[in-house]
Amino acid sequence: MPIQNQIILDVLSGKKVARTPMWIMRQAGRYLPEYQEVRKQAGSFINLCKSPELASEVTIQPLRRFALDAAIIFSDILTIPDAMGMDLKFEDNKGPYFEEALSSQKDLKRLDQKNAGEKLEYVYDAIKQTKIKLDNKVPLIGFAGSPWTLCVYMVEGKATKEFRKVRSLVYEDSAFIEKLNESLCSTITSYLVNQVKAGANVVMLFDSWGGLLNKNNYEKFSLEPMKQIIKEFKKESDVPVILFTRGGGNWLPLIIESGCDCIGLDWTVDINHAKSLVGNNIALQGNLDPCALHGDERSLRCAAKKVLEGYGEGHRHIFNLGHGIDQFVNPDNVNLLVEILKEESPAFHQN
Amino acid sequence: MPIQNQIILDVLSGKKVARTPMWIMRQAGRYLPEYQEVRKQAGSFINLCKSPELASEVTIQPLRRFALDAAIIFSDILTIPDAMGMDLKFEDNKGPYFEEALSSQKDLKRLDQKNAGEKLEYVYDAIKQTKIKLDNKVPLIGFAGSPWTLCVYMVEGKATKEFRKVRSLVYEDSAFIEKLNESLCSTITSYLVNQVKAGANVVMLFDSWGGLLNKNNYEKFSLEPMKQIIKEFKKESDVPVILFTRGGGNWLPLIIESGCDCIGLDWTVDINHAKSLVGNNIALQGNLDPCALHGDERSLRCAAKKVLEGYGEGHRHIFNLGHGIDQFVNPDNVNLLVEILKEESPAFHQN
Repeated sequence: MPIQNQIILDVLSGKKVARTPMWIMRQAGRYLPEYQEVRKQAGSFINLCKSPELASEVTIQPLRRFALDAAIIFSDILTIPDAMGMDLKFEDNKGPYFEEALSSQKDLKRLDQKNAGEKLEYVYDAIKQTKIKLDNKVPLIGFAGSPWTLCVYMVEGKATKEFRKVRSLVYEDSAFIEKLNESLCSTITSYLVNQVKAGANVVMLFDSWGGLLNKNNYEKFSLEPMKQIIKEFKKESDVPVILFTRGGGNWLPLIIESGCDCIGLDWTVDINHAKSLVGNNIALQGNLDPCALHGDERSLRCAAKKVLEGYGEGHRHIFNLGHGIDQFVNPDNVNLLVEILKEESPAFHQN
Repeated sequence: MPIQNQIILDVLSGKKVARTPMWIMRQAGRYLPEYQEVRKQAGSFINLCKSPELASEVTIQPLRRFALDAAIIFSDILTIPDAMGMDLKFEDNKGPYFEEALSSQKDLKRLDQKNAGEKLEYVYDAIKQTKIKLDNKVPLIGFAGSPWTLCVYMVEGKATKEFRKVRSLVYEDSAFIEKLNESLCSTITSYLVNQVKAGANVVMLFDSWGGLLNKNNYEKFSLEPMKQIIKEFKKESDVPVILFTRGGGNWLPLIIESGCDCIGLDWTVDINHAKSLVGNNIALQGNLDPCALHGDERSLRCAAKKVLEGYGEGHRHIFNLGHGIDQFVNPDNVNLLVEILKEESPAFHQN
């Protein structure tokens, strides 16, 4: 059965659409009281990720509240290092961490690539259960962290203030970083292919920490591995790929050449400038400042309109925040944003 | 008596030079054992800032070790909110903080603009003592934090992970942020003018947190106030102004119009692209990745050469890191970098 609301797939394949579609990064999350309840029931964040029933439930929660145009599977980018044996831990208000971070090439022996696929079955199961619950209403987005971003967490152990260990290792021991990247590439590719097999209609690469690097090293350690993944993925699947590098605004001319179908923009990028670079060949996703959701209606409308006006006339824009929605947002403001988009965006789709 | 080593002033005024000059952000700092000793003697970071004798001593320490082309007065960007009555505190391994952060317009009453100038005399005294100790060998750089960056600290109380309070206030209560910015502008302008009167030969605005904003808000809350400061400053002084927005790579076309004489680039910006935007009208400063100082000689040379090659032929580049030097750098590597610059940079000054 075809998906009823195809608008995001239409934008991704370059079809004409009547309005700007929208979903929200981290839309299934702590700002929703119903999420908090399931999270409590699960006992821990990691249990929630690993329970296909609960993960699929929280995945569809935002769709019950808001007229969003896609669901994104509830999971975490660190499922892969966890499946490779790194034992992912979460503590409230501390975020994810690994107790034993990697420091040099000899630590790579600790990574189990062979059985990682099997250990990720819970993600595919969650996707399957979500597809049933979604009942073909909207497309489901699958995702993975980029090799570099996983590498950052695996080397730092957690999100640190300056990420100095991994940023220094890029110069001190680049062979180690390259090897680690390599070992992640094939695992991520199969992970994405398997998510599609389980039912994902779009996949997205989250390169949350590409922006830590300089241009040369971004190209070498972050973009090149993502290009490889996209190339291998495209051999096995024809679902569209969204690539999002936070802090990647300086490198759009490089990202355009990555083979992705859509580029995610954080809130610092001028979407008008981005459109002038990508033309109509690639879709753009973003780029509302997530903090705009803390303003009143006038302020939120003004900020959302600036993004719409920045993109201007055209059919290749998926509205989204420039980063994940934060836990302090009032869910009513998300509804307001959906309404604003419905009211304001058709004007940009007249031709 | 004229300054003996004028090369940085020459680059700033557009004269032809025979090599690329260099200084290092935070060059007087914790990576130097002799700094650590004076810091211990001072008892606290804040005492060190407030003692003209000790501050001038640590200012000239890096010049004794390395053939750098400028000194920068040892101080902190938060001296201004401190002088306005916010009581700046430092704790080891915690960084600077204010116990009572500002939250709304009524808190602005707590700020004492009138007597701030007087309370900053210790900075001017440190500059005077440094000038004597420098004995006209190299120029001395004075500096201030940008209004937005001070605003970030004054509202957050300290450097936080996501800076969500101030980023949200931009939407929730923009009038408050504007008023706070306004009250900082005139204080910062007089502060810079007084630094020049005391002997500073160049001044620099550190906009460490401009990169948190989106383009519209960067323009409104960060760049516009800096423009005002530069305009007012230029009425009273003819020393060159360097403007550095960390994370500002996306907004170079706007920054070019700020009235500054030199734009500081962090390490994420492609200096070649920046040069193509600014042409010969404005100098560029930067943009080596600070972590490159953790590599071996081959790696450091390669990274430094990429910056030199990126800028290419021309006389308007001051070599520097893209951010402050970190406390874990081996000082020998700074010497190595100075040597590398001396060897490699003349090739780019043939014409």
